[in-house]
Amino acid sequence: MKTILEIGRAAREASYQLAAAPTEQKNRALLNMAEQLEKNYDDIMEANTLDMANAMAKEKPKAFLDRLMLTENRIRAMAKGLRDLVALPDPVGTIDAQWNGAQDIEITKVRVPLGVIGIIYEARPNVTADGAGICLKTGNAVILRGGSDAINSNLILGRLLAKGVAEADLPSSSVQVVEDTSRDTANKMMTLNRYIDLLIPRGGKGLIQSVIQNATVPVIETGAGNCHIFVDETADLKKAADIILNAKVQRPAVCNAVESLLVAEGVAEKALPVIAEALRKEKVEIRGCARTVEILRQNELPVTPATEEDYDTEYSALVISCKVVKNLEEAIAHINLHGTHHSDCIITENEYHAEYFQVAVDSAAVYVNASTRFTDGEQFGFGAEIGISTQKLHARGPMGLNEMTGYKYLVNGNGQIRK
Amino acid sequence: MKTILEIGRAAREASYQLAAAPTEQKNRALLNMAEQLEKNYDDIMEANTLDMANAMAKEKPKAFLDRLMLTENRIRAMAKGLRDLVALPDPVGTIDAQWNGAQDIEITKVRVPLGVIGIIYEARPNVTADGAGICLKTGNAVILRGGSDAINSNLILGRLLAKGVAEADLPSSSVQVVEDTSRDTANKMMTLNRYIDLLIPRGGKGLIQSVIQNATVPVIETGAGNCHIFVDETADLKKAADIILNAKVQRPAVCNAVESLLVAEGVAEKALPVIAEALRKEKVEIRGCARTVEILRQNELPVTPATEEDYDTEYSALVISCKVVKNLEEAIAHINLHGTHHSDCIITENEYHAEYFQVAVDSAAVYVNASTRFTDGEQFGFGAEIGISTQKLHARGPMGLNEMTGYKYLVNGNGQIRK
Repeated sequence: MKTILEIGRAAREASYQLAAAPTEQKNRALLNMAEQLEKNYDDIMEANTLDMANAMAKEKPKAFLDRLMLTENRIRAMAKGLRDLVALPDPVGTIDAQWNGAQDIEITKVRVPLGVIGIIYEARPNVTADGAGICLKTGNAVILRGGSDAINSNLILGRLLAKGVAEADLPSSSVQVVEDTSRDTANKMMTLNRYIDLLIPRGGKGLIQSVIQNATVPVIETGAGNCHIFVDETADLKKAADIILNAKVQRPAVCNAVESLLVAEGVAEKALPVIAEALRKEKVEIRGCARTVEILRQNELPVTPATEEDYDTEYSALVISCKVVKNLEEAIAHINLHGTHHSDCIITENEYHAEYFQVAVDSAAVYVNASTRFTDGEQFGFGAEIGISTQKLHARGPMGLNEMTGYKYLVNGNGQIRK
Repeated sequence: MKTILEIGRAAREASYQLAAAPTEQKNRALLNMAEQLEKNYDDIMEANTLDMANAMAKEKPKAFLDRLMLTENRIRAMAKGLRDLVALPDPVGTIDAQWNGAQDIEITKVRVPLGVIGIIYEARPNVTADGAGICLKTGNAVILRGGSDAINSNLILGRLLAKGVAEADLPSSSVQVVEDTSRDTANKMMTLNRYIDLLIPRGGKGLIQSVIQNATVPVIETGAGNCHIFVDETADLKKAADIILNAKVQRPAVCNAVESLLVAEGVAEKALPVIAEALRKEKVEIRGCARTVEILRQNELPVTPATEEDYDTEYSALVISCKVVKNLEEAIAHINLHGTHHSDCIITENEYHAEYFQVAVDSAAVYVNASTRFTDGEQFGFGAEIGISTQKLHARGPMGLNEMTGYKYLVNGNGQIRK
């Protein structure tokens, strides 16, 4: 079993070859990777069946088992994901800018891979293939450290993906799965600054916080989503109800689902019953402020009184907090204080309010009259996505291929020295 | 004395107002800040004299005292630095891209301030004014935590700068100096993720490593510079000697000075004596590999045998390590292994070698036939610089105004919900 130091060193070496690989060669690797997965369906299923049996013996919850389980369709989806990457433009080599500096030195700012990416995730084997594909396409070597319960699935996937890479004459250590899933190894990986350029944690709040707390390697924080929708005084109530319903109900467990509703005082008596009635039909529990409770009870609609904690809670379930606010300013202040800077929305017919809200709300995506559920690489048109960043450094919102690259400066002279 | 938590909260609130401030208002603040410094020359000098007296009583070294000392000229230079920022373009509000996503939602990617920047630095009062100016111009609130030996200078500078900001009707807590310079407060600052978006350490290796090790807030690593110059077989030896001399001697203490020389075997016998003779005249000590020692001794030129450690050392002094390498590939491998990914250079007349070197060397700035000393915000034409990043995330190389911003997505719809 390779140590994390050996894995890191091999990844760093691979990253130098990958950085210089032409797009065509990387695309060939992606096709080979897809083929390897489809060709070795039986081996993958055998490993996954072992993981499933172990997890069931440990009485893991149903949702956990569902995320761990592979099926023919899921393996095909992984392979399709890899093939889809081929058609996407390769950001590596793109010239961002070119100019002359002091004494006419020629400066070219060019997109390059970040180098070595570490992905730390839970027992979800699909992340193994997704992560490997996105990193390979963007010329990054990847170290995949998945949850211990998926180790057999991840190891076979890692071996097959690396084989596909090697078949395209690129280093097989471009894609490595960490076999030792101990906490000690994870901690070492988080401080491997010499060999890892970026850590991306993918999973629940606990996992992400643990990486942020322990890593000295740069981290991109992903996934926390306490998203708001503010119903402005001038809101079209039909739009408001449709959007809120979609943002809450269409897929409540994801990070771009809405968790908190703010309603302007001037429109609350009219708006809240309409919205609450729509939510009630979909069995969404409303946790409201005193004024919300008052209005909804007058209208004989179900409501639970909210506590202060509710406004800081990402339910990821059919629950929504609701607060009546004085005006636009109070809504903005509430969102900036309680939100997670992910996706927040105003429903309004007033252009000035829309613009003000978009400037003042400090979030990755700030919406006017559309569902927060659009914060997604595919919906944005990126084609692929490694996660949704909720920090401000480097990348914000959906991280597509471009966000998996950095840049360097090429400086060309003919003997210039500094004066 | 405000706690770091209170400082953080005030900075966060200020950052929201700053993010919405028009360029004209921020420029007015910069002019006021400059005027405050010039108008209150006596008060600044009084505080600095106190710091100087304390530092002398502690028998601080001469270089330390020189960095701590303020003079009329230095205060004028600070004020000029602030005024110079006025003329530079404001990146905030710039539209990076605009397109339609799924269901024709309109997506606009717009430059925004990062929010709250923490700068941790040593006893250099000029960083207080520089940091405040660059952050203010880019709409970021700043928390300045300088070395304890400069505390009196920093406090008066902070007060005056904040006054200048307030006179432009922007929140005075846009610029705050941390009064409590204890280690405990510094550690709390490094983990203030709720209120600080980015930490920039400026100073020696010890300071930077301490921030990287202890921070949970995202950090940009700056300043480490083990820069190389590789003399290729086809090098013009006159260019080589001029560039190496400039990169080593012009200002040896800075991070873009060259520390290590690599020479292709095929040209070593001819090149090394020319280069060594030029370096000898400027009293530069050469620490060479066995082959370097052999060649230079044959030519009766002074040389010290190098140890392995030399190749990992940033001397910041009139010393250079020197190694004869087989070819381009060995040079590149050596640089990627021993370098700090700052600035590295090839001297060559072969275009293919030049291009290959620029692709394969994993550094912020990769040079062909020009001195590494050009890696600098001013020389690059950025007008101002907060530091030189040696990490790959977010910003690489000189960080100018643009690198002090991030982006957000404005999404405009007319009722779209996700299908």
